Amino acid sequence: MGTQPMTAPLVSWHDTDTKRTILRFVASVIDESSPHYVSPAERIAVFDNDGTLWCEKPMYIQLDFILRKLAAQAESDPSLRSRQPWQAAWEKDFTWLGGAITKHYQGDDSVLQVLLGGILALSEGQAVEQVEADAKVFVENERHPTLGLTYRDCIDQPMLELLGYLEANGFINYIVSGGGRDFMRGFAHDLYGIPRERVIGSTVAYRYVEGDGGGAIVQRADLDVVNDGPDKAVQIWNMIGRRPIMAAGNSNGDLPMLAFAGGPSAPALRLLVLHDDAPREFAYIAGAEGVISAAQTHGWTIISMQRDFRQVFAFQGPSA
Amino acid sequence: MGTQPMTAPLVSWHDTDTKRTILRFVASVIDESSPHYVSPAERIAVFDNDGTLWCEKPMYIQLDFILRKLAAQAESDPSLRSRQPWQAAWEKDFTWLGGAITKHYQGDDSVLQVLLGGILALSEGQAVEQVEADAKVFVENERHPTLGLTYRDCIDQPMLELLGYLEANGFINYIVSGGGRDFMRGFAHDLYGIPRERVIGSTVAYRYVEGDGGGAIVQRADLDVVNDGPDKAVQIWNMIGRRPIMAAGNSNGDLPMLAFAGGPSAPALRLLVLHDDAPREFAYIAGAEGVISAAQTHGWTIISMQRDFRQVFAFQGPSA
Repeated sequence: MGTQPMTAPLVSWHDTDTKRTILRFVASVIDESSPHYVSPAERIAVFDNDGTLWCEKPMYIQLDFILRKLAAQAESDPSLRSRQPWQAAWEKDFTWLGGAITKHYQGDDSVLQVLLGGILALSEGQAVEQVEADAKVFVENERHPTLGLTYRDCIDQPMLELLGYLEANGFINYIVSGGGRDFMRGFAHDLYGIPRERVIGSTVAYRYVEGDGGGAIVQRADLDVVNDGPDKAVQIWNMIGRRPIMAAGNSNGDLPMLAFAGGPSAPALRLLVLHDDAPREFAYIAGAEGVISAAQTHGWTIISMQRDFRQVFAFQGPSA
Repeated sequence: MGTQPMTAPLVSWHDTDTKRTILRFVASVIDESSPHYVSPAERIAVFDNDGTLWCEKPMYIQLDFILRKLAAQAESDPSLRSRQPWQAAWEKDFTWLGGAITKHYQGDDSVLQVLLGGILALSEGQAVEQVEADAKVFVENERHPTLGLTYRDCIDQPMLELLGYLEANGFINYIVSGGGRDFMRGFAHDLYGIPRERVIGSTVAYRYVEGDGGGAIVQRADLDVVNDGPDKAVQIWNMIGRRPIMAAGNSNGDLPMLAFAGGPSAPALRLLVLHDDAPREFAYIAGAEGVISAAQTHGWTIISMQRDFRQVFAFQGPSA
């Protein structure tokens, strides 16, 4: 990820109020003579990943990664083919799978729990380094089902430029995602320039296994952190111990993180990515109704992909 | 914390094998032409706190902090004075209290559990900022019971110089302590130059409380992480995601962290602080038998306070 030349920041953004709001905010917090000046150590910016930094439709990219692993298990063991979630993975039943996520954001976790059971079973005994290596190979080689892009190119180019622009202005960028932390650590630095210690996500529990060569950290089949909703604010405090001054998200699960930014005494910029661009990406509000309403109520900055993004992806491929 | 001039690093260390081993290790990992060269991002150094960076006898400094809070509760509520751990706090029964820790390191947590019950009750509903502010006032003002020093001066000066020397050589220092994370965040930067996001410790669970001004992070009366033993390695992976190349500790609870350093492919320096200096600090091996034995077996570097430290504290006060 390169930083932007100061003469033309955010070139993939149209010259709209949204871009001007971002530029004005950054200018005010780095100006030592401004009442809104923030020291570099406190210039914490947190970004959701799925739907904020990269595409999350027709399903989470990590879900494709997991489904391929589940399908491979069903390939080896036919008895799994009539048991969820292996059945859906084996049959590529995206309706069942998409429903798990939509229902989650509507407050019903029953299908998600079944899916989670399969994910946890996959985790047991996996060395963390192997999970990361698999994730890296996956995003660099597998393709999005409709956009005609490899997954690594499904990044919102304007958001990538925003990360670079912030870094060039002394901000410290973190990913704060509901996605798997070990999965994201496999590529976060390559794709976003964000180092592994600044990747905050959901995670299974670990065990430390003694052994020659320093032992190993191995995943267990137990959830440790589900990094969504209020737990995003909690994990930010656990991992950083500072309140962000910029937060970007796109779904109801990002609402507490956006509200948490700034706090009583510091300035804050809260960015909500609105997926309203069916021709170039996707258009949907399911799972984002609450955060859109909150953004309107509180005057948070809404990023319209259609109106504010000059381009969405760096390498826009043909639609399938 | 100042960094050391390169011409005279580690001035509070005697010119022994221990100091030479440290200097040689640092020189080899920062030398790009060395086969042991380590890039700055990977120069992770982890330090236990109690007994490694500052004094832990006659009891953990944080325990004094907690006991004063428990005693204050017993002051207000006489019914607590016949109930542990309030009774021990109220009566200043250090035998009962010290036994909790000694038994813990011998594998018996029964008394520690009773103490923990009191600590958890103290935590319920506490805003994290208040805990930090109280900790800062405490270490800056209260005095060690026998050393004649305020707690903030109970830091091992040679270890403070080591932190500065490492930082000057591109290392990234972390505290990885069994002590309370919120307690340590109150003073870690002032005392050690270690920023709050690099303080890894034990912690109670939090809740995010919505509200005006961005809401608040509040402690709950549930343990989240007990950062000791194998969990130190697990928490290092959770928080950093990199294997340290230097680790320093002093008790059995540091053994897995020391073993975890370096790993199969990277160099590592493992430092064990041996408390063998009754005249200037304390002499004890209880709770360190296993790690001393491991250090001898594996050839880890043992720091003898008596032999290797020119001075222990920057402001050595009169003994009480």
